[in-house]
Amino acid sequence: MTLLDFESDRLADFAAQVRADYDDLQARNLKLDLTRGKPSSEQLDFSEALLALPGEGDHRDAAGADVRNYGNLEGIRDIRAIWAEVLGVEESLLLAGDSSSLNIMFDLISWSYAFGNNDSPRPWSAEEKVRWICPVPGYDRHFTITEQFGFEMVTVPMLEDGPDVEAIRELVQDPQVKGMWAVPVFGNPTGITFSEEVCRELAAMETAAPDFRIVWDNAYAVHTLTDEFPPIHDVVGMAAAAGNPNRFWALSSTSKITLAGAGVSFLYSSRENLDWYLSVAGVRGIGPNKVNQLAHARYFGDAEGVRAVMRKHAGSLAPKFTRVLEILERRLGEYDVARWTTPQGGYFISLDVIDGTASRVVELAKEAGIALTGAGSSFPLKDDPNNRNIRLAPSLPPVEELEVAMDGVATCVLLAAVEKLGA
Amino acid sequence: MTLLDFESDRLADFAAQVRADYDDLQARNLKLDLTRGKPSSEQLDFSEALLALPGEGDHRDAAGADVRNYGNLEGIRDIRAIWAEVLGVEESLLLAGDSSSLNIMFDLISWSYAFGNNDSPRPWSAEEKVRWICPVPGYDRHFTITEQFGFEMVTVPMLEDGPDVEAIRELVQDPQVKGMWAVPVFGNPTGITFSEEVCRELAAMETAAPDFRIVWDNAYAVHTLTDEFPPIHDVVGMAAAAGNPNRFWALSSTSKITLAGAGVSFLYSSRENLDWYLSVAGVRGIGPNKVNQLAHARYFGDAEGVRAVMRKHAGSLAPKFTRVLEILERRLGEYDVARWTTPQGGYFISLDVIDGTASRVVELAKEAGIALTGAGSSFPLKDDPNNRNIRLAPSLPPVEELEVAMDGVATCVLLAAVEKLGA
Repeated sequence: MTLLDFESDRLADFAAQVRADYDDLQARNLKLDLTRGKPSSEQLDFSEALLALPGEGDHRDAAGADVRNYGNLEGIRDIRAIWAEVLGVEESLLLAGDSSSLNIMFDLISWSYAFGNNDSPRPWSAEEKVRWICPVPGYDRHFTITEQFGFEMVTVPMLEDGPDVEAIRELVQDPQVKGMWAVPVFGNPTGITFSEEVCRELAAMETAAPDFRIVWDNAYAVHTLTDEFPPIHDVVGMAAAAGNPNRFWALSSTSKITLAGAGVSFLYSSRENLDWYLSVAGVRGIGPNKVNQLAHARYFGDAEGVRAVMRKHAGSLAPKFTRVLEILERRLGEYDVARWTTPQGGYFISLDVIDGTASRVVELAKEAGIALTGAGSSFPLKDDPNNRNIRLAPSLPPVEELEVAMDGVATCVLLAAVEKLGA
Repeated sequence: MTLLDFESDRLADFAAQVRADYDDLQARNLKLDLTRGKPSSEQLDFSEALLALPGEGDHRDAAGADVRNYGNLEGIRDIRAIWAEVLGVEESLLLAGDSSSLNIMFDLISWSYAFGNNDSPRPWSAEEKVRWICPVPGYDRHFTITEQFGFEMVTVPMLEDGPDVEAIRELVQDPQVKGMWAVPVFGNPTGITFSEEVCRELAAMETAAPDFRIVWDNAYAVHTLTDEFPPIHDVVGMAAAAGNPNRFWALSSTSKITLAGAGVSFLYSSRENLDWYLSVAGVRGIGPNKVNQLAHARYFGDAEGVRAVMRKHAGSLAPKFTRVLEILERRLGEYDVARWTTPQGGYFISLDVIDGTASRVVELAKEAGIALTGAGSSFPLKDDPNNRNIRLAPSLPPVEELEVAMDGVATCVLLAAVEKLGA
């Protein structure tokens, strides 16, 4: 029997109990944080060795160049070879950069805006309007970039196997639709992985804009929570085969593999796209931090070394995800007041509460000392039209804190629900 | 007696000798490179310890934050405190970034172009024309950035104590003049250091554009070739006192102090300018590589640690500069076919040859296996109107190679001169 079916007396009793639970929660004066997908100290410790790498006397890359000196805009082969194997792509089409793939995404859009990209009839700044496809729920920092450039963000829903391709195919008939965000594997916040079929359709579809780009943010490509790594589809190859070679700007990074904010980022794309990127990157600067790239190559050793680190992360993260899911099921399962994802990888659980109550849940949690990502964060302009989605980030707190926080969140979900029902 | 005064017989004999010298030079099949201001291996070895820093177990900054995790867009206090002391500026107005200050300069201009800066009536992309003041000779990579954005570059001459302030004061009456490049200490390629008076006038002058900015690239602030460090003028403070608080974007980096391309960059400016920069930087990404910042803080220890490293650099570089100057004097001094700077710091010697012969000198050198920076490189659009300036970069080659290369360059200067004289 769900909460909606409760008769009024029973609902009143239930509401009184929930209010008492919330009072107890507030009385605990908690200070807990589930806001961002940050790795925990335990996870960061896995890569502690990096802090002393590459080590004195080790400063030559595989080509014999001194990584301590200027040059090499494409990044050193040592780390590119490892990452090409991890992603199963051509090394020659993979660049290694500084620490942040988000930086590269911003630059790709910024430079398309200022100069146009290699397929643009004119700079995007000279377009009357630029529209951008945003699968929702999605990654807030993506949406903030397209908001910064004043693009009109058009949402499409995430389905079980990726974004709604039918809706996308319609939208790209508009020449003002210049691009799309995508997190193809263990998506933020849904945990959804695009099927091969979805990848193939996105690669093959006709677009009105010749300079249409999909920003393929493969941030969680190897971030499994199980024993299995997902297949990684070579969308750049698929797009080339379909006659749309420049469709994808594919990104990856080690931020949630080694050190968050101090890893190595990667850009994988067609030769033409890379040449365009490098033509501006070479004006912006001389090259990436190659010492950090060499340190990473030494740390991993090879692609299997990357997977070995990821197994450690899974060992640390999976129990946290399990506990969150257990608590959600135990506290909320019987009342039908929420749905949530059960991700096989990535960093998030996406929680949908009763329509219209997400912002109230976040507010109640805040007043009880539990910081949640703002309601609506996973939508462009932070506007969740149903006010229902909350992104849970279980990685950072220790398990004991996580349990307390999630139990508190469940209480807030129930309280917001009974408030909504007027009880 | 100068070459110009030689009577025809003597000139013919001299020309024959120079041609013979050049034939000998070509016969040596050299492969030497004086193109870029790269530190030598000996210099890079000074900072070899950095390759193992901060070291395992050392990952907390002065504020107690874990540098291995996301966050802190302004950079860690540990390195900001050291650098603020080095520059003699307020720590709160100094940000620490990734490895490249050139990246920051590009972004400052790029974001002013796309969005306008904090004093702009409109984005620079919406201006009919943007004009930019370029003291010449200057740094080629600066000019390439303003070329990339399509700005009209207006040159002003470098005088003994900095750029021609009278000319600048005239130019900034034009509201389309939005900015100016400057290398205030040991300039590239002239070695000229701006006087305090020039700094003060640039800080105080009235500009028609409210969003006018001077990109103050203090790349060589501590790069002395002698026992003395130059005074560093606090132009941001001067500008604030003069009522133009947002006049300067001041940059610095450790690229030519520790590791080239793997150091730490710094932005020093007014609070308003920094807040604007951070407002976009926070969209572009989450924060800089703080592990590398902590490594640098540990390596230097304090501001005196920085000066100690710079004394080692001076010990390595000064003999190279001395040899270059000796060779120029010995081979060219008596003929009055060239003038050159005698810098007290920085990375370059600026060589002026007979008008119209610089590109020929570079060509002759290339044909003899000596790579020089392209003629005109120190001018916007690589256009030296007098075709006279050549930038010499003595840092990279070992002294023995440098001697051979410079002797060869002198031969090429003489050969181009006698060709010019029709001999």
